[in-house]
Amino acid sequence: MIRISSRELAERMGLTASQIRQDLNCFGGFGQQGYGYNVTELHAQIGKILGVHAGNKTILIGVGNLGKAIAQHIDFEKRGCKLIGIFDSNHALCGKQIAGVTVDPIETLEAFCAANHPVMAVLCIPKTAAHDLAHQLVKLGVRAFWNFSHYDLRLEHEQEQIIVENVHLGDSLMTLAYGLQHQGDAHE
Amino acid sequence: MIRISSRELAERMGLTASQIRQDLNCFGGFGQQGYGYNVTELHAQIGKILGVHAGNKTILIGVGNLGKAIAQHIDFEKRGCKLIGIFDSNHALCGKQIAGVTVDPIETLEAFCAANHPVMAVLCIPKTAAHDLAHQLVKLGVRAFWNFSHYDLRLEHEQEQIIVENVHLGDSLMTLAYGLQHQGDAHE
Repeated sequence: MIRISSRELAERMGLTASQIRQDLNCFGGFGQQGYGYNVTELHAQIGKILGVHAGNKTILIGVGNLGKAIAQHIDFEKRGCKLIGIFDSNHALCGKQIAGVTVDPIETLEAFCAANHPVMAVLCIPKTAAHDLAHQLVKLGVRAFWNFSHYDLRLEHEQEQIIVENVHLGDSLMTLAYGLQHQGDAHE
Repeated sequence: MIRISSRELAERMGLTASQIRQDLNCFGGFGQQGYGYNVTELHAQIGKILGVHAGNKTILIGVGNLGKAIAQHIDFEKRGCKLIGIFDSNHALCGKQIAGVTVDPIETLEAFCAANHPVMAVLCIPKTAAHDLAHQLVKLGVRAFWNFSHYDLRLEHEQEQIIVENVHLGDSLMTLAYGLQHQGDAHE
């Protein structure tokens, strides 16, 4: 496919054509009236907007079940990130390879950050450890957090903005439970 | 704490007091002007609205890294669901216990559904398998899908509504990459 219309895009994405056009116009607009969008160009432009080629240096902390799954399941490079370090406080896990990266003891985190300057951290650690570790990481230069720790981080830094995505996996499960509950109500 | 005001709730949740009051009013409103909300009662009412005690029978399909992590990491019971079956097409995994549930071969899925009537399915299977399996499950009586398969399911059934939560873990990582990209722009 060489080109695609906003209507076709809308159908595929479950949005309206007008939403698609408005959203893309926020970034300058890449289509032509009556022609639509050149697919290759649109893909490249959206990639550029998202920063998928930025290769942001990323570390992951905590390789319990979830941390391990995130490290192995997520294609970091495709999403603008490069996983350069994995850390855990459990020394039995250290030395193992996960997603091609060796797990290092958490005690080496500070030296690693000083040497390698990661800008993003994936937190797969318990709730109780998240606040302190995140503040330590901000001091060590981390500017973005992908936080799976069940604790809503709010981080500030005097000069730069700290970006946080707090992921609560269970929330979408509750959305489903609510939906099922609601179906039941309608049938009563 | 016995009671809480909408202002206090708003501060904790990063919303406005007016949003909190509006949202709760959609379900009847549980507060009194000048008093706020009784914490125990509010907690119970929200739990009832969400259906957290419904114990919806749930099966999980696919115990690769992600499926295993979901089964072990998510507290299904706390979110209105009861994990009653786990299935995989890899016979080497069958017979193992994950989160207290024995992994069964996918070939036994139909008989299991006929006997146990699960209403919710967690799909941790590859993209290519998602469409067909989901349609099979709808025929077997499943009414809600928590879908981690990187494929946007849209399901219909002649009599009942099918609810789907398509989870794209990587999306929030791209949000972070975009944020970092944007920070850079501001500094230029």
